[in-house]
Amino acid sequence: MDYAGRQANLQRDLGRSGLDALLITHLPNIRYLCGFTGSAGTLLVTESRSAFFTDGRYKEQASTEVRVSRIITGRKSPVTMAAEWLKRNARNLGVRVLGIEGQHLTVAEHSQLEKALRPTVRLRKSPPLVEQARMVKDADEIALLRAALELGERLFDVAIKTIRAGVTETEVAAEMEFAARRAGAEAMSFETIIASGPRSALPHGRASTTEIPAKGFVVCDFGIILAGYCSDMTRTVHVGRISADAQEMYDAVRIAQQAAIEAVSPGATAGKVDRAARTALARKGLGRYFTHSTGHGVGLEIHEPPRIAARQKDTLQVGMVITIEPGVYVPGFAGVRIEDMVLVTESGCEVLTRTSKELLIV
Amino acid sequence: MDYAGRQANLQRDLGRSGLDALLITHLPNIRYLCGFTGSAGTLLVTESRSAFFTDGRYKEQASTEVRVSRIITGRKSPVTMAAEWLKRNARNLGVRVLGIEGQHLTVAEHSQLEKALRPTVRLRKSPPLVEQARMVKDADEIALLRAALELGERLFDVAIKTIRAGVTETEVAAEMEFAARRAGAEAMSFETIIASGPRSALPHGRASTTEIPAKGFVVCDFGIILAGYCSDMTRTVHVGRISADAQEMYDAVRIAQQAAIEAVSPGATAGKVDRAARTALARKGLGRYFTHSTGHGVGLEIHEPPRIAARQKDTLQVGMVITIEPGVYVPGFAGVRIEDMVLVTESGCEVLTRTSKELLIV
Repeated sequence: MDYAGRQANLQRDLGRSGLDALLITHLPNIRYLCGFTGSAGTLLVTESRSAFFTDGRYKEQASTEVRVSRIITGRKSPVTMAAEWLKRNARNLGVRVLGIEGQHLTVAEHSQLEKALRPTVRLRKSPPLVEQARMVKDADEIALLRAALELGERLFDVAIKTIRAGVTETEVAAEMEFAARRAGAEAMSFETIIASGPRSALPHGRASTTEIPAKGFVVCDFGIILAGYCSDMTRTVHVGRISADAQEMYDAVRIAQQAAIEAVSPGATAGKVDRAARTALARKGLGRYFTHSTGHGVGLEIHEPPRIAARQKDTLQVGMVITIEPGVYVPGFAGVRIEDMVLVTESGCEVLTRTSKELLIV
Repeated sequence: MDYAGRQANLQRDLGRSGLDALLITHLPNIRYLCGFTGSAGTLLVTESRSAFFTDGRYKEQASTEVRVSRIITGRKSPVTMAAEWLKRNARNLGVRVLGIEGQHLTVAEHSQLEKALRPTVRLRKSPPLVEQARMVKDADEIALLRAALELGERLFDVAIKTIRAGVTETEVAAEMEFAARRAGAEAMSFETIIASGPRSALPHGRASTTEIPAKGFVVCDFGIILAGYCSDMTRTVHVGRISADAQEMYDAVRIAQQAAIEAVSPGATAGKVDRAARTALARKGLGRYFTHSTGHGVGLEIHEPPRIAARQKDTLQVGMVITIEPGVYVPGFAGVRIEDMVLVTESGCEVLTRTSKELLIV
């Protein structure tokens, strides 16, 4: 990973934002900038330097992982250590205005920082510079996302072998997660959703102890983490004979999902992609059952910018990786969602997810 | 769960803290107060009312789970919906000072709230009222923690059946996690630590693709979530013949862990419990290798107050459930940690973890 290049880009953006330095407290941003994968750390990037602060537990790990930033460990919290270090070095480093990540820093940490740095350094909410950089994936990241998705997709084979009437949703999730671990996944990227029968109408129906009924949809939404990068996909299968209504629902979602994919191209707004899905569902009279947004960026986090939602003006750029996942949820009856990961390319997009979207009857 | 009682306690505490209402944004606090288990929501508790805000995805789930608060769903973010609702109702409800959770609310959310509520309602950082209440577990919670731990402990049997030279750490974790899921666990409570050979010296050595060596310690630190409550335990086993040095290390940690357990009683400070472990290790010349704190509270979160660490003045109270987990880590050589969950009782404490602490040679 080109950590030096990423930090250099950030240093350039600092100047443009009127900041002398940025205090990075959001762990995925820290990992992106310096490679640290632990759960406690703070990174300080000034226009010419960078220093990483962590506690004693991570001393060895940091020295292996973090190569482009100076490492400072101690017994205090990383934010406190960073504040004390900056106070001592602010003059030398020419830091008078320190950017903070307003979306992540808590009110309590902010007060603590303000107190520690006054009057030497002023705090200012920074634009989400690192998140903006992370929206466009570099070649290393795209390769990692492909690898994560490839592993993630194999779990769908496990799901369809396991899903049958009478099996609990958690048993299906257990088989998938076991396969994920054995295949080398670090973790699932979110709690596996296996939502069967009327539960398929819950957009976030995490696997429960419910037994899969003899007839109905099963929404399977799952992903894994591999080398820090997340996969995310959804397929909906049907157990038993399908009714005409249910088949129509499935077909409508599939058409809407395809319409959204076709709307993806560099320069298109996120709102336009969302509208494509929404319009297609409205045409079938199902618009009001599509109760969430069409998609989101995916990378080191399972949900990251851009949001693919109504009225979002973010423009898609080559190298973004987003999900396209419209769904229809009729409370008490049934739900369907289909989700792919999509890479924005010069000519439009590449659907990274290879798994068929034909309705499977199991 | 006595959600009504918990909210009534909070309402009493609000008055004492000079707050007319509290905006609860930390999800475990929300779950504790109203039962909501989803991933997006905000709870507003005034002296006489409570209202829960969530987005469309959680409409059905909220109506099943949340019985003691009014439910309001919409398309905006829960914090925005809460601010708009409060602005409309502030006069009727007599809310002029709104407490916020400074440890959890982000700087960005704070600015947004301030803008939305000005000049009707002022914001003030609240003491951690819900965390303080959550430190002492009620009978329902203790029963759930016992159940979580009982399930969690069964995974150690899986671990010792799987651990042998040449098996990767992730394979061990995979078998444990599969068993957890099949037994009905919702998830692991943190990333499973299987740290073998020299990796045992990493206090947070998440299972890696490293093969377990023919000789050395394997630290197994793991937990599961059942009905929202976390288990947490560590056992260290040894593969192959053990050296005298390693045996001494193990014995020292075991003695230190026992000393800390014996220091647990109502009225004792957290610092005193920590000191008991630290003193015991110092006596064996191993003090400087114990690089983290002795323990933490455990409940809806894997780490919650009180912290059992040096100089902590929090007093232990009957009903607290904490971990006692000293360790010794000699970089490049080996590490040992032993961890139990302990319930503070009238007469001292009850060690909830039943698994033997005799050193197992596998």
